[in-house]
Amino acid sequence: MRLSALLAPTLREVPSEAETISHKLMLRAGLIRKLASGIYTYLPLGWRVLHNVEKIVREEMNAAGAQEVLLPALHPAELWKETGRWGIYGKELMRIKDRHDREFCLGPTHEEVITDLVRQTVKSYRELPINLYQIQVKFRDEIRPRFGVMRSREFIMKDSYSFDRDEAGLEKSYQLMRKTYQRIFDRCGFDYVIVDADPGAIGGGASEEFMVLADSGEDEIAVCDGCGIRASRTVASVAAPRQGEFDHNKLPPIETVKTPAMKTVDEVAKFLKSKPSQLIKTLIYEADGKVVAGLVRGDHELNEVKLQRALGAQSIEMAKPATIQKVTGAPVGFSGPVGLKGIEIIADPFVLDIADGITGANAPDAHLIHVVHDRDYKPNRIVDLKLADAGDTCGTCKTGKLSLKHGIEVGHIFKLGTRYSASMKAEYVEEDGSSKPFIMGCYGIGVSRIVAAIIEQKNDKDGIIWPAGVAPFGAIVIPVNSDDPEQLKAGESLYETLIGAGIEAVLDDRSERAGVKFKDADLMGFPVQVVIGPKTLPKGEVEIKLRDGGERKVVPERELLACVRGGLSARSPVGKI
Amino acid sequence: MRLSALLAPTLREVPSEAETISHKLMLRAGLIRKLASGIYTYLPLGWRVLHNVEKIVREEMNAAGAQEVLLPALHPAELWKETGRWGIYGKELMRIKDRHDREFCLGPTHEEVITDLVRQTVKSYRELPINLYQIQVKFRDEIRPRFGVMRSREFIMKDSYSFDRDEAGLEKSYQLMRKTYQRIFDRCGFDYVIVDADPGAIGGGASEEFMVLADSGEDEIAVCDGCGIRASRTVASVAAPRQGEFDHNKLPPIETVKTPAMKTVDEVAKFLKSKPSQLIKTLIYEADGKVVAGLVRGDHELNEVKLQRALGAQSIEMAKPATIQKVTGAPVGFSGPVGLKGIEIIADPFVLDIADGITGANAPDAHLIHVVHDRDYKPNRIVDLKLADAGDTCGTCKTGKLSLKHGIEVGHIFKLGTRYSASMKAEYVEEDGSSKPFIMGCYGIGVSRIVAAIIEQKNDKDGIIWPAGVAPFGAIVIPVNSDDPEQLKAGESLYETLIGAGIEAVLDDRSERAGVKFKDADLMGFPVQVVIGPKTLPKGEVEIKLRDGGERKVVPERELLACVRGGLSARSPVGKI
Repeated sequence: MRLSALLAPTLREVPSEAETISHKLMLRAGLIRKLASGIYTYLPLGWRVLHNVEKIVREEMNAAGAQEVLLPALHPAELWKETGRWGIYGKELMRIKDRHDREFCLGPTHEEVITDLVRQTVKSYRELPINLYQIQVKFRDEIRPRFGVMRSREFIMKDSYSFDRDEAGLEKSYQLMRKTYQRIFDRCGFDYVIVDADPGAIGGGASEEFMVLADSGEDEIAVCDGCGIRASRTVASVAAPRQGEFDHNKLPPIETVKTPAMKTVDEVAKFLKSKPSQLIKTLIYEADGKVVAGLVRGDHELNEVKLQRALGAQSIEMAKPATIQKVTGAPVGFSGPVGLKGIEIIADPFVLDIADGITGANAPDAHLIHVVHDRDYKPNRIVDLKLADAGDTCGTCKTGKLSLKHGIEVGHIFKLGTRYSASMKAEYVEEDGSSKPFIMGCYGIGVSRIVAAIIEQKNDKDGIIWPAGVAPFGAIVIPVNSDDPEQLKAGESLYETLIGAGIEAVLDDRSERAGVKFKDADLMGFPVQVVIGPKTLPKGEVEIKLRDGGERKVVPERELLACVRGGLSARSPVGKI
Repeated sequence: MRLSALLAPTLREVPSEAETISHKLMLRAGLIRKLASGIYTYLPLGWRVLHNVEKIVREEMNAAGAQEVLLPALHPAELWKETGRWGIYGKELMRIKDRHDREFCLGPTHEEVITDLVRQTVKSYRELPINLYQIQVKFRDEIRPRFGVMRSREFIMKDSYSFDRDEAGLEKSYQLMRKTYQRIFDRCGFDYVIVDADPGAIGGGASEEFMVLADSGEDEIAVCDGCGIRASRTVASVAAPRQGEFDHNKLPPIETVKTPAMKTVDEVAKFLKSKPSQLIKTLIYEADGKVVAGLVRGDHELNEVKLQRALGAQSIEMAKPATIQKVTGAPVGFSGPVGLKGIEIIADPFVLDIADGITGANAPDAHLIHVVHDRDYKPNRIVDLKLADAGDTCGTCKTGKLSLKHGIEVGHIFKLGTRYSASMKAEYVEEDGSSKPFIMGCYGIGVSRIVAAIIEQKNDKDGIIWPAGVAPFGAIVIPVNSDDPEQLKAGESLYETLIGAGIEAVLDDRSERAGVKFKDADLMGFPVQVVIGPKTLPKGEVEIKLRDGGERKVVPERELLACVRGGLSARSPVGKI
């Protein structure tokens, strides 16, 4: 490809719409353009990287024995009603009616559709295990699309689904996918970690996420310096504190104080000349329609995923003000566990350690002081509800300290079990003639997000540094002055040599100043630059520059191929924390 | 791949939902399954064929210098409003609102989106010409989805768009695409013709369709036995008749007769003891909101595309009964040109040749007889409006006779000119500094439809006969009895030999009867079958059967590779009418 013909509109200015490095560089290097909020076009360079990532994913999935299919984007509502997700998925699910007023959604994930396919086509245990995958467009109407293709509303995903006879089979399928994902992310050149995760709207049992470490990552990872466990912050467990020793009998009795219009922890603590850590924060939720109260220490955050898991609920949300009024007898901000009747109360262990507590009085503009666990209230259950913070003690080893890192989720694997096969009656016939639900797993990779994640990890002040395996072109040939016919001719000849040797190359034949050409080549990030200039040309030499590291050397033309191949096989070291 | 592990659920029964050969065979051979009306899943075998077709398309498009991009499926309504198509596209356009109530559609074609991209990114004549393409999912809410993936609501299309400085450039881009399409359809092994076509909702000037000849084809093609011209029946021109000679003065004067409740041509002709060919059929249309009358002979059909072209209208539809009542003073069925005022009247030349005509009286339950052109009414224009029939005289050479054939449209190329660039103000800067709209072309290929069209042309009573270039696997290795360890072992060894030589092969390792295996192999249509049986195995021989033609031969094992390669390179002859 000649750069003069390639649609690669580079930008000198940093686009104001972009916040992260990858979003800025994808716009500046001419990889993508925005069509609407969270909806992007891939230009030729962007498409080529996407295609290379797809190729890696496809090769590794095929090597693992998975079979490629293509499922539709339009899903009939009936299937989503079978699993109940039509009702609980919310606004992220884009819904559409056809000309006959039949309801469909645009698939954000394909559990329903694949389960429907397999219940129709796979009949016997003899056909198991099976793993089906696709690389296909997905739609999620994100409440806040951002960071370019990192969190977009239309994106490319590899999703696969395994079907097994039993849990042991699922474990095998799951571990095979886990290894396959490691190979894929290694080939992408990522520095990543695998963390315990929350299955979220997909549901099912255990799940793990593959997180590319990057400061701009939206996800937080808790890492223990003791046992080394890594978990999404949304599920990281926190050790209970050593219970403090205090004599309840020495405390004054409970007392009601007026706290007019003081609703936040900080307001109340300040007004009562206390500390937030003395407060018992009482949060009222609705979980699958049932009202519950969650208690955490005033200076802690309640982790909703932990509460949802503790309740075994499909969905959870903060109770509406009217519900809170009805259940507690007070408006929002004055709830407390003392005298709270008719709903389950779940407390985080840190709450029990508050010697002399403050909490809402379940009456307007009033709080209670000198509140003590056991004497004044009894939670129904004590459960780890605290959102992990840096410095917390690890809930797994009970000794190490947690630290927090940022990551980009590029893959997510789930043990679904019978979450879908049971509700959709997807069954096969066992050897003994009985019908059994398939034991399922599902495995996702954000293909378009990978493109952005690579850039987050591989860039410098001048632009992108593509790993050779995903680079849009392996090499760029740059005649320093294309208006010099000798240089242009030499450039064309070297370009043809590279193409002839099967190296994807681009020739910068533009009539631009040398500085512009070098800047664009660095910005677009091709791994190898082949420079033809007035000093080297007469001597039959070329200058080779490696984008990663910036190493330059002048070599005789006959060494061009060996040198370029060498540059393309040099891979950035892949590290792990 | 081992057949025991492959998801290829073949069916013995002919599925009742399928009408055409390709639809039946795609279901029976386990290539596709239906998810909803007009919405299909591609199973592994179907996906592999689709992928092979995509590969051919991609290679030829790249060889023509086109650049691959990926445009979104979700299009903001604003763009479609700029070109006016939001209003005129009708129910085929699937519309959806996002969580913020913003309007989008699911792209049925991408002229708006690509024009928006190019007006943002291409600034100068120096960057032209450019041709951008994508292979991507499209959505059209067909009023009657049918024939499986042939006319579906969600499908894969290759669409490309060329941008030029002038008409000469467009002509060059168009002819390059035309040649590229010929190469693509040749490689698919098609027997096809290129026909003049109606641009339809895409608009623009000239357009041609690539039609695969098949009795099941929904499109009709008129072919002239004189000049050889081929055109879609929707645009095929028909020569005017030699005007008959008759003396108007000898005819009795016009006369009104009662025709109570007789609305159809046949009813009126029978009632008046005349022939349909004596009637002047008068059809009232609204074209871009303007009311017009079209006249054709009673036994002819009016071709709406011809009328629309004659009017230069964006859209055309039959006038509503209320409009007809208002314009003619009579209900539907009693319109006629005599005394019809205030609207344009366009007549087909055959109408002028009616010596003694019958037509509606523009009054309820009444017709006029002894109606004569010129004496009793004068059309504003005489234009070829007749829908071509077999036996008509060709409108191009005026001597040959037309015949009709059926075809499947697999490609369509258009000269758009400034249809989109003008309304969207997509301009570039010319050498002289002036701003000019891009001169555009657009070029579509129905990638998923190609899969079905190949089967329509390549099948026999036993199943599909895949051309080697698109076959899901080149060869199938069949141990006649997989329960015989010797045969299975030999099968595995031959299978490994093929795979090792880069031939995509499948091993039928299933514990099925030989008859079932042979039937499935024929049904799935792999080009070469390698059979291992009790007679050949001890002699170190294998039987090779070519699916196309059924040729069989027994060869020594060492000749396996040469023989399979030979079978895969034998291509079905490609003919043209």
